[in-house]
This record gives sequence, C-alpha cells and structure tokens, in this order.
Amino acid sequence: MAKQQQQPQQSGNDAKGIATRAADYSQWYLDIVKRAELAEHSSVRGCMVIRPQGYAIWEKMQRELDDRFKATGHVNAYFPLFIPLSFLAREEQHAAGFAKECAVVTHHRLKTIDGKVQVDPDSKLEEPLIVRPTSETIIWNQYKGWIQSYRDLPLLINQWANVCRWEMRTRLFLRTAEFLWQEGHTAHASEQEAREETHRMLGVYADFAENVMAMPVVQGAKSPGERFPGAVESLSIEAMMQDGKALQAGTSHYLGQNFAKSAEVQFLNKEGKLEYPYATSWGVSTRLMGALIMTHSDDTGLICPPKLAPIHAVIVPIFRKDDEKAKVLPACEALQQELRQAGLAVKLDDRDLHPGAKYYEWEMKGVPVRIEIGPKDLEKDSVCLVRRFVIEQPGESEDDRRKRKKSFIPRGEALAQIRGLMDSMQKELFQRALAFRESRTRVIDTLDQFEAFFKGDGGFAWVHWAGNAEQEEELAKRFETSIRCIPLASQIPDAARGAGTCILTGRPSAQRVVMAKSY
Amino acid sequence: MAKQQQQPQQSGNDAKGIATRAADYSQWYLDIVKRAELAEHSSVRGCMVIRPQGYAIWEKMQRELDDRFKATGHVNAYFPLFIPLSFLAREEQHAAGFAKECAVVTHHRLKTIDGKVQVDPDSKLEEPLIVRPTSETIIWNQYKGWIQSYRDLPLLINQWANVCRWEMRTRLFLRTAEFLWQEGHTAHASEQEAREETHRMLGVYADFAENVMAMPVVQGAKSPGERFPGAVESLSIEAMMQDGKALQAGTSHYLGQNFAKSAEVQFLNKEGKLEYPYATSWGVSTRLMGALIMTHSDDTGLICPPKLAPIHAVIVPIFRKDDEKAKVLPACEALQQELRQAGLAVKLDDRDLHPGAKYYEWEMKGVPVRIEIGPKDLEKDSVCLVRRFVIEQPGESEDDRRKRKKSFIPRGEALAQIRGLMDSMQKELFQRALAFRESRTRVIDTLDQFEAFFKGDGGFAWVHWAGNAEQEEELAKRFETSIRCIPLASQIPDAARGAGTCILTGRPSAQRVVMAKSY
Repeated sequence: MAKQQQQPQQSGNDAKGIATRAADYSQWYLDIVKRAELAEHSSVRGCMVIRPQGYAIWEKMQRELDDRFKATGHVNAYFPLFIPLSFLAREEQHAAGFAKECAVVTHHRLKTIDGKVQVDPDSKLEEPLIVRPTSETIIWNQYKGWIQSYRDLPLLINQWANVCRWEMRTRLFLRTAEFLWQEGHTAHASEQEAREETHRMLGVYADFAENVMAMPVVQGAKSPGERFPGAVESLSIEAMMQDGKALQAGTSHYLGQNFAKSAEVQFLNKEGKLEYPYATSWGVSTRLMGALIMTHSDDTGLICPPKLAPIHAVIVPIFRKDDEKAKVLPACEALQQELRQAGLAVKLDDRDLHPGAKYYEWEMKGVPVRIEIGPKDLEKDSVCLVRRFVIEQPGESEDDRRKRKKSFIPRGEALAQIRGLMDSMQKELFQRALAFRESRTRVIDTLDQFEAFFKGDGGFAWVHWAGNAEQEEELAKRFETSIRCIPLASQIPDAARGAGTCILTGRPSAQRVVMAKSY
Repeated sequence: MAKQQQQPQQSGNDAKGIATRAADYSQWYLDIVKRAELAEHSSVRGCMVIRPQGYAIWEKMQRELDDRFKATGHVNAYFPLFIPLSFLAREEQHAAGFAKECAVVTHHRLKTIDGKVQVDPDSKLEEPLIVRPTSETIIWNQYKGWIQSYRDLPLLINQWANVCRWEMRTRLFLRTAEFLWQEGHTAHASEQEAREETHRMLGVYADFAENVMAMPVVQGAKSPGERFPGAVESLSIEAMMQDGKALQAGTSHYLGQNFAKSAEVQFLNKEGKLEYPYATSWGVSTRLMGALIMTHSDDTGLICPPKLAPIHAVIVPIFRKDDEKAKVLPACEALQQELRQAGLAVKLDDRDLHPGAKYYEWEMKGVPVRIEIGPKDLEKDSVCLVRRFVIEQPGESEDDRRKRKKSFIPRGEALAQIRGLMDSMQKELFQRALAFRESRTRVIDTLDQFEAFFKGDGGFAWVHWAGNAEQEEELAKRFETSIRCIPLASQIPDAARGAGTCILTGRPSAQRVVMAKSY
C-alpha cells in the first residue's frame, strides 16, 4: 500500500469538502469553480483565468455552437479589438449604455523615466480607443464597404472574440471585466427577414441550451428597460438556476436600421432605391459556463452533461500488490483503447494515489462515468461502472442512492453500456432540470400570492403585468424581482395562457410575463 | 444569354487585373489580399479586419495546429487581455523589448461633458494596464499558484488569443497592431526537458508548415540580437517568399528560469529542494496567412494548398438557354452531393453571372479545382476539370499551359480524380516552393560573391560568419541582410556542411548561417 499512501495531489486540489447548496449557495458555486479547476481570479481586477478544465468545456460549447451557426449559413470573420471613441458615440443610446463600463486606451508607448518603466506622456493617442464591449459600431463601419446592393444581402457574419465591460462587482464566469463570447452581426434587405433572423438565432441558442447543455430555457422578449442599448427589440433565453433565480443565457437583438443609419450604410434595393439595411446581433458568452455549473451540479462537485464532457469516463485501477497491478493495469489499458477507438474520451488514471482520492477528484470535476477494475473484476470478467449521479428518489437514503449509482456489468458489455449511459444521463439531466424548474414555477394572479412566493423559495412567477417602468422598479425594490421576459407564444404553458389583469395595477394585460429574481 | 450578362458581382470584386509579381511584388501581395477578400484595413490605425474568406483559411490552420498541440500533450486555457504595467516591468529585457509597442489602458469610464462623450477624468486607473503584446508575465504570475511540486510539472498550456503590438508601419497579415495567434507556455522540472520541448514545438511548426501549408522551412536558432526579449535561446522556422526574402513563420523559445524568477515561482524537486522551473514559449500568428499567400500565389490570384482550402472545388454550370439550364443544373447538384458526401467541400456557383466572371473570381480566391458541366458534357457523360495551377514547363506558352490545366474525364471518375488532384496538387505546391527556394539558395564563401548575390536577385545565402553585433549591423546596412538563423544540424545540406572562415572577418566559424533579406 506504500505507494498509494502518498499525498494527494498534482492539481492543488485537496480533500476538504465544499459548501453545500443549502448552507451557502453562493459559496457552493465558487467552491465548485475553484475545486473543479474551472477558473480563478487573476491579478488584474475583474479579469478571470479560464483554467484547462474549464476551457475544455468552453471549447466543446464553441464547436457545437459554431456548427449550428454554419449550418444556418453564417461565416466567421474578425474585427478590431479597439473602437474609436467617436464610433461608439455615433449611436446615442448605445454609447450611453456602455459608457460606464469602457476600458480606454489613451497611450501607445512606455518609457523608462527616472529608472522606472512608465507610460510615455508623449505617446498620447489623438483619439482614445475603447476596448470593445460589443462590436456593432466597428463592424457596421466596415459593412459600409461591403454592402452596396441587395445582392450583397443578407450578410451573415459571426465573430468569436474577447470583450471588455468594466464591472465593479465581479463573479467568475457570470460577470467579469473581460469575457469570451461570439457575436453575430447580420444585415438584411427587409425588416421581416431581419426579424426572422433574430428569432432563428434565438432558436439556435434554445436548441443548444436544451439539447447540449441539458438546460431548459424560456424564450421571450425583454421588456423595454432591459433591451440592448440601441436595439428595437431584444430576445433572450432564460434559465432557472438551483437557487430559483433566473439567468439570462443568450440574447438575440433586432436592431432595425439604427446602426446602419449611424454608420451611414445604404444599399440599392430591387426597385433601384437607396435604403438602409436592417440589422440583427446575437451573442452567448462564457457566462454559459456559470449557467452549466448552477443548473446541474451537486454538493459533490461539478456535473457535466455528457455532450459537453471533455472526459466521458475515467478508469481507476484497483490493486494492493504489485502482482495485482501487473494484471489490472493491462486490462485497464485494453479497455481504454477499446473505448477510445469507439470515439469516447477516456482517461486512465494510473497515478500513485489512493483510489478514494481519485474518486473524489473526478466526481468533483464532473466526469459522467467512473470505471473501476480490480482483481475480482478480472476473475469475474466484469467491470464496475459508477455514474456521477442518479435522479433522486423521494425518501431514499444516501446509502441507497450510492448503491443505485453503481453497477457490475460483463466486461464485454462495457462499451455498449457506457454509450447507453451517455445518452440516458444527458436526457436525465434535462428532465431533472425541467422538473426542478416546474417545481419552482407558479402561475400567480395576486400581489399577495406574489409576495408569498418570493418571500418563500421563489422561482419563476407567470404573472399579468401592465405597469409602467416606475412600477416595475417599485416591484424590483420590494421583491428584487424583474421581468425576465415576455415569453413567445410557443413557450406559454396551458395554465398560463390568455389575457388577464395586472397583479399590481389591475389594468388589463394581453399575456403573462415571467418574473423572477435574477443574476 | 440575357441573365448571364448582369454585372458582376456580389462581392465587390471587379474584373480589373492585379499587379504582376515581376512589375510590383509589393502591390501584387496587397492586390491578392484585397481581391481574394482575405483581409482589409479598418478605421483603427494598424488594425486589420480578417474577412470571411481569409478567416476560413485561418480556422483550418487553427484546427490543424490545435490537433498537433493536443497530440503532444498540451491543453488550452485563457489568461487576461490586460497586463499590469508592473508585471511587464519585472523582467527587464522583456519590458525593454516591448516598451515601444504597448497599447496602454489608463481609464475605465466615459462621460458626457459639454454634450460630448469623453473619457471621464475621474476614472483613471491606479495602475495602467498594457494590452498584452505577449503573455509570459501574466501567465507566469498565475503559474505561481499552480506549481508547488515536481508532480505539478511539466505544465503544458497553450492559449489562442489576440495580441497587440503598436506598429508604426503596418502591412496586412505581416505586421499589424493587433493580430491573432497562439502562444504556448510550458514549465518543466529540468533544463533538458525544457530544451527538448522547445525543439519539439519547433518540429511541430515545421511539420505544419511543410505538410499542411506546403511551405518548406529552414529550422534554426536566432542570433543573440534577434532573440525574443527575455529568452535564453530562440528558435525559428524561416520560409522563402517569391521575392527571395525570408519570412520568420514561427518561433519557439527556451526561456530558462528568467520568468520563473521574476514571478517568484518555485517548486519542490524530487530531492526536496526548492528550485525555479524551466520555461518555454512558442507561437505562430495570422502572419502565416501572409506567408501562405506569398509562397504559392501567382499573377491570377491566391493559390491555396488543398489541405487549407475552405472550398476544394467549385462547380460552374454552363448553359445558354433555359432548356439547357434545366438539364445542366440537376447534374451539377447531383455531383455536388456526391462529392460532399465523400467529405469534399464543394460549392455550386449557380449565380446569374457569365461563366467567365465566375472562373475569374474562383481563380482569384484560390479554389484548387473548377468543375465545368455543360450540355456537351452531359451528352458525353463527362465533366471538365480545371486545376488552379500546373507546374511551369520551361519554354511553354501561356496557351499550352492553359491546356494542361484542363482535362475531360468520365463523369463516373470525378470523385476519384478530384481526390487524386487534392493529393497531387498539395505535393506539387511543396515541390514547386522547394525548387524555387533551391534556385535562390547559394553556398557563398566570399564577400564579393555575397555582394553579387544580393545586388542580383538574392535569396538564402549559406555563409560562414564570426562577426560581432556591430559587424552584423554593418552588413545589414550595406545589403539589407540579416542572419535569419543558425540552422539545426539536420537542416544543413551537404554542400554547406563543415567549418570555415567568416566572409567578413576571416575568423574561423564552426558552421554556416543563413543570411537573407527579410520581412
């Protein structure tokens, strides 16, 4: 056993527990981000470091999204990081919306003065440059040269990039001064086509959220106060986290002709007349990592849906003596090879650590399946599979649940069983998240009910609303809630359909909105 | 014909010619970048826009490189865009090397003052932030928390990112204020291991350059004056462009313990003693796009090696009347489908344009193969394949060469023939570039020969050199040449092996170096 008694471990992780969701939800989130080695703070205020474990998940997200963008006719391009101050200022609402979050480049050289490296005062730029908080203005300035005729439309472009929004209160993945994202920027010959694009891309995001992230979302329009600065209409997908709060996970904006006008882009339409093109923009960011963590994970660590798991299964060899090791390790290697050849991402963890430390680490990191192989398994020609999670049964003991996670199967069935687990675990995660959301969703008709709901556990409240912006703010002050979205017709459950009266003002309302506390 | 007489065209391209290499090499390069729609200048001084046609090639480069990085055990991560001024200043040489090219963020807010959006003077940062010109300092500061013991090593990390080096004289892809790149940053427990890594990654770059870009390279060490600021040794791959100049296409640096020391990173080695880890860094950038263009393209436009071509083949339907169109188009669609199912990227160009305009456009954009299908081809059950290039034969007429590009083949053989063309064209491009380099390479023993060579066409001169830095500069002033590299032993052709005497000083020299004019 000597070898296995060495200290854990390579990764800087240790065997301490993490906060539970019930005890301290906020700390639980930070603990997982840290202990699953997904991200950490850097020495630059508000800027995060995405660690390899986190970046590997983000890469899988990127691939899935990029494939969907290309399948809907989009191509990628790259535009400058810097935006001249005057460009940002062209669209008034847009400038006002981002003014307080702008990192500004003012100089372009350093110099050693009095033995100290300093900003060279003689290198001041004629015009300050903003580190892009979003790229509408710089991209539309470029589109000017690309769009002359209706034949140049639609222009369907996406950019993968970093952006910077100077935030005072940051939170890893959810709100950081710099983050990674994609931003689609399209130009169309008609309003209808642009509006269709806005909805198409919202649909792409919803499909990705539900079928890849296993995260159910409500699709809807933002209220005027929550619109993207410069947009005519903003759509979003809203997901419910395990604390019942809403998280805006992606947005798709119909920009009308605002940015075309401010950049003076016109095209000759089929009738031979000059017209401003109609624009959309849409984006998702590394914020999705936060959404992923808070949708599925438990008090043992990260839970990652198989479709986004960088490692599908980890093999842990079990042995006490060298002669056992000599038999067990080759069997593990053979299984790894078989599974890899079948396209599964499999890691054989043959480090000199106690198996328990390995279980702990890979559970923390969210690997969907653990495969244990020891001398007894070899004798029986079986392997032991341990799922990262099972759906909770009411009244079940911890011990019973642990047993349900574990199964001994014939070695020959390993590949098929693991493949089956990937499918079923993906589906179960979505079902579990959906069931949770339903358990925390209420159709609410009075302010008293509303108050009771949000003074309790809270969640998504489907309510009729006809208040003005001030009344919306009043509600926000009392309950910390806001209109998350005005759901699309397709999103409204039967029990919430139809017209009614506003819970606050009693005025008539055509359809219910979703109100919730939010990130 | 009416439909086909419409004006070209969607893309803003027109039918004017481009400069020839012989007449104006520099303009020829810019014309291709523009007319193949690869990139263009933005309104931000020195920053380029990578257009979809160019970005699609860059994406294929990224995928090929990323696969190679992962196959050699590296993982991706992401570090902040901003570097505190004090971090950069920690490593003296490093700071001095980049001081003149730094974009500096000094403020974090805008404000409307006197009705005008301006930088808010009250938002000045306590410490200025540098937009990363490279990330050694910020990454090593983070490694401090990741490296405690020899068990944490090697740490093999790569980052895909944008970087900023404020350049006064810019040139699309080759030298821009912002560019895209990858930077590997590794930490090792021994000098030997780190040096091996430096060479391993240089080998990865050489493999990519030669086998994917079809661009022959010389691998070697940079002379002390050309080292990366802060490196102990810098290796590079050097390619020859069609004007005979060298282009440094990738670098791999052994950094010793310099950055570990300045960031105060230490690890407990196997002997239980504290030691500074040994570092490497290595990178290639969108500069490779410039190298690609200048290695293969001709006076008709871009030539893209099949392995990096976003479109392998374009199908152009040929017809005059509607009844012909009705037969030809379905045949084109069927062929497109067959080729796509076989994994080829195929575009059917069914726009209402004259075929000649399409030929012109796709040749300009470097699509390796054009497939023409008209009524006569249908009758004969054949298709016409036109290669983007053939290797020039001495004394051949333009017309003869055009004929050699074209072949009529049975329809049933299309897939096999096109696949074969992809392989053979890839190889031919490498062979052509290698033959060109050899034709412009000389083993030179005297200063007179050297002068004659560089007053003539010039190219790569293999010379013995034992001069000092001042003498190197003297040579640079007279001939605009520099030591491109001190080639690795494996790179030295037989005719250039062995010791000799310096062409300038007559002092003994152990091996020849490669001198050339350069980008």
